[in-house]
Amino acid sequence: VTLADPGGLELLPLSGVPDVRPGDDLVSLLGDALESLGGLQGGEVLVVAQKVVSKAEGRIERTDDYLGVVLREARGVRRRRDELVIAETAHGFVCAGAGVDRSNAPEEGTVVLLPVDPDASARGLRDGLGVRFGIAPAVIVSDSFGRAWRQGTTDVAIGVAGLQPLLDLRGTSDQRGYRLQSTLVAVADELAGAAELVMGKARGVPGVLVRGFDPPVGEGSARDLIMPAERDLFP
Amino acid sequence: VTLADPGGLELLPLSGVPDVRPGDDLVSLLGDALESLGGLQGGEVLVVAQKVVSKAEGRIERTDDYLGVVLREARGVRRRRDELVIAETAHGFVCAGAGVDRSNAPEEGTVVLLPVDPDASARGLRDGLGVRFGIAPAVIVSDSFGRAWRQGTTDVAIGVAGLQPLLDLRGTSDQRGYRLQSTLVAVADELAGAAELVMGKARGVPGVLVRGFDPPVGEGSARDLIMPAERDLFP
Repeated sequence: VTLADPGGLELLPLSGVPDVRPGDDLVSLLGDALESLGGLQGGEVLVVAQKVVSKAEGRIERTDDYLGVVLREARGVRRRRDELVIAETAHGFVCAGAGVDRSNAPEEGTVVLLPVDPDASARGLRDGLGVRFGIAPAVIVSDSFGRAWRQGTTDVAIGVAGLQPLLDLRGTSDQRGYRLQSTLVAVADELAGAAELVMGKARGVPGVLVRGFDPPVGEGSARDLIMPAERDLFP
Repeated sequence: VTLADPGGLELLPLSGVPDVRPGDDLVSLLGDALESLGGLQGGEVLVVAQKVVSKAEGRIERTDDYLGVVLREARGVRRRRDELVIAETAHGFVCAGAGVDRSNAPEEGTVVLLPVDPDASARGLRDGLGVRFGIAPAVIVSDSFGRAWRQGTTDVAIGVAGLQPLLDLRGTSDQRGYRLQSTLVAVADELAGAAELVMGKARGVPGVLVRGFDPPVGEGSARDLIMPAERDLFP
């Protein structure tokens, strides 16, 4: 599979991955799917859905008290309206239900929690796939978050490895020579959202391989995407 | 150009488009760029940067009072810290500076304003391209917005034509048969963000053609993406 346009981007679904259960070896399952796409060429980003990462890591809990689990997982509650709780997770992400997910849980009466350390989850996948293929892809663990002021969810990055999640254009100039003062692009979130378009098209697609986007080089953390408290205008 | 994987997505840059000036015929300029990509096949989404739409529509203003223009364009101010004004635009979008842009303005001392009616801008492009190619693409006009709680901007849809910006999964079931209660995916925002990854790679790419994503059918509006006041928890 080669990219038709050198300036373009290609997003390929990882398909044929069986239902993931606690203890499963995700590196092996995702690696097999990557193999069917012709393996890795270098410069790729692999986006993996949080749900399969959490399931493989056993972050499943049996409960009949969803709200209780949400409030336990939350480090703080920003807003609440009936069952909708906008909470800050232990990692610092602000999202509905502190990331506790009732849908897509393996059975009725269970919920799926966020990974304890999604950056470490991403790093584990990156390292393991690097060993298998001799080339390590950048990895993003993605989840669907709601937003302030806008309807609908978009997928964002909650864990990253092998890339900087923010592209920093501060200090560069635009085409007219105007010095850009504040342009910081959340490319990891845009990559996660782009991958969701592919994951959402078919059932059972737990990951997407992005070809043609050379991500900002470095070892970043998804925590870089969190607005620092002193600059947060919507506490 | 054909898509390598039927389940995948391809994003192709519209290149070779000259600097856009007030009064320019965007349908003709973007149409020529689409021609070099082999024209339209059907089912495509064309994402066009707000900046070129605004420039073509003459939404450029000479001013030495950026903040004054911001406050005039704003229908309301949500938060303010020094020069940073989180404002609600006349359209109802919440963003920094009410969408008034100093960077990428055609000359020093000018600013670029949002289109008066970005849905109408998108519709004009869709209709014009439909006449030229015999197939009308869905069109999204995109802009870079900051977010609450997260650092960095992502591109979102501020105008749409020929698609529903939200994919409504409410009432459908997940793989386990659990009835999804509240899943509404902002696919138009995810498409805009995906296109930004391509536009950000090279200078002078004012649009991106997305192949392989069949957008939700219908005539939506980017206003569908705005959280209604009665459900807005962060006024």
